[in-house]
Amino acid sequence: MIQRLVIFGVGLIGGSLALALREAGAVAEVIGCSRSPENLEEAVRLGVIDRWTTDPAAACVEADVGVLAVPLGAMRGLAEAIAGHWPEAALLTDVGSSKQAVIDAVRAGFGTLPRHFVAGHPIAGTEKSGVGAAFPSLFEDRLVILTPADETSPLATERAAQLWQATGARVEFMTPAHHDHILAATSHLPHVLAFALVESLARSGASDEIFHYAAGGFRDFTRIASSDPVVWRDICLANREAILTMLDQFQRDLDGLRAVIAAGDGATLESRFGFAKAARDRFSEQMQVQLDQ
Amino acid sequence: MIQRLVIFGVGLIGGSLALALREAGAVAEVIGCSRSPENLEEAVRLGVIDRWTTDPAAACVEADVGVLAVPLGAMRGLAEAIAGHWPEAALLTDVGSSKQAVIDAVRAGFGTLPRHFVAGHPIAGTEKSGVGAAFPSLFEDRLVILTPADETSPLATERAAQLWQATGARVEFMTPAHHDHILAATSHLPHVLAFALVESLARSGASDEIFHYAAGGFRDFTRIASSDPVVWRDICLANREAILTMLDQFQRDLDGLRAVIAAGDGATLESRFGFAKAARDRFSEQMQVQLDQ
Repeated sequence: MIQRLVIFGVGLIGGSLALALREAGAVAEVIGCSRSPENLEEAVRLGVIDRWTTDPAAACVEADVGVLAVPLGAMRGLAEAIAGHWPEAALLTDVGSSKQAVIDAVRAGFGTLPRHFVAGHPIAGTEKSGVGAAFPSLFEDRLVILTPADETSPLATERAAQLWQATGARVEFMTPAHHDHILAATSHLPHVLAFALVESLARSGASDEIFHYAAGGFRDFTRIASSDPVVWRDICLANREAILTMLDQFQRDLDGLRAVIAAGDGATLESRFGFAKAARDRFSEQMQVQLDQ
Repeated sequence: MIQRLVIFGVGLIGGSLALALREAGAVAEVIGCSRSPENLEEAVRLGVIDRWTTDPAAACVEADVGVLAVPLGAMRGLAEAIAGHWPEAALLTDVGSSKQAVIDAVRAGFGTLPRHFVAGHPIAGTEKSGVGAAFPSLFEDRLVILTPADETSPLATERAAQLWQATGARVEFMTPAHHDHILAATSHLPHVLAFALVESLARSGASDEIFHYAAGGFRDFTRIASSDPVVWRDICLANREAILTMLDQFQRDLDGLRAVIAAGDGATLESRFGFAKAARDRFSEQMQVQLDQ
């Protein structure tokens, strides 16, 4: 049982984590900390947190577990604000989408990486943002990747894993660099493409008409373009190298596909689309198996 | 009431149209025609059609309404097979995703464009294919675009509109070229991008791992990559010019966004992502309003 949980940044992910741990009976008291009293009052009204402060140092008092759930660009400043206040033995973790950047930010903010800091990332979310979108089952049957550093205490890593398991998530481990490479492919690149497509169409002359005739396929394809621009700005900055690598590879492959379309080469088109469909169908089955487990 | 409806190509779209018209009490008898007896037997079992033939000429006998619902690449051959057999006064329409290509194919197959042929395209579908995926409400509250040619009889156009209205769809009219331009943006380009992304990731070294860590955002973004490769091969060939125009514009815009990421220009990233999010949110609201009407 966590006596006092502090959520720094009470939005979709931080709020859902608090709700999930409450529902699991795994936490006695939840403190919310962010820059916006309105956000924090809403979180109290929604039953996500018990009380709040806008002062990160004050939020640290007698904390057992802390979760950094702010956008990546705010991690460094937050770490500076709680360094010297965070109880040394208390577990500190985060939910950022780029792990090396968070580890660097926490190390820089604290001066040295706290042994009880465990970098983590739940592979879950929706295109919505804000605490109003939080719900307790967000992490059920989802993967959470923990990326402990060399300095990280194995005990802290174990506690972080238990924390996430209490929400119904399955925990896996990898290095920060490997996490960042994988996420660039599965999440960051698709988001960049969805933002780029919607922007490209919206700036075109006939945008109202284009959106009028769009249907379910377009809706699903572009859903992630409704994601929080600040969060995704920070992800693109924090994981820039891996994203650019994936984007360059994609653009080369897209150039190749464009040439096949331009050449009117139906046999190659059918074969390449068929290869993609088979891969997507396997992914779909695999995802269903995971959800059914 | 349609006495005898002939569906050429009994898959997701043709099958759903037959089911919708049956459910509306708008048709007395449905004949299925395709090259595969197994497919047609399944369609009978599922209650989609009453009887079938694999001979297009035989399917024309005493038909009131015919629907060409085969992949675009099969349109020309089908038109040739029914020319000389199709009753002159019977309404003939289609459901292809590229309208100029269908009109050209039907004109070439018949020698001259039948006055009772009305090119049409329901903006509806799923990533699934085959008659087993058909369902009667597929077109409810969806748009159907009719693109009559100069030669088309206004009476035939009116009958085609009534046919679709009976399924619960809303009918709009435009020129074939305009349809092809709009659909390249809202449907064909997203499909090409989804196929390209899944193919790019699946060919990369760590594809199993990448798909293992993919979540809901990736699933939605890539859902359309499970679409029928033959259908999409034919769409890329039939609407090649419009698709290449849209793709080139997208690649230029994506290059621009890549440069912003590479430069680490957070302010521009936030502004561009914010613009895309606002456009996507408006689209989402508009789509909801349409569905609520």
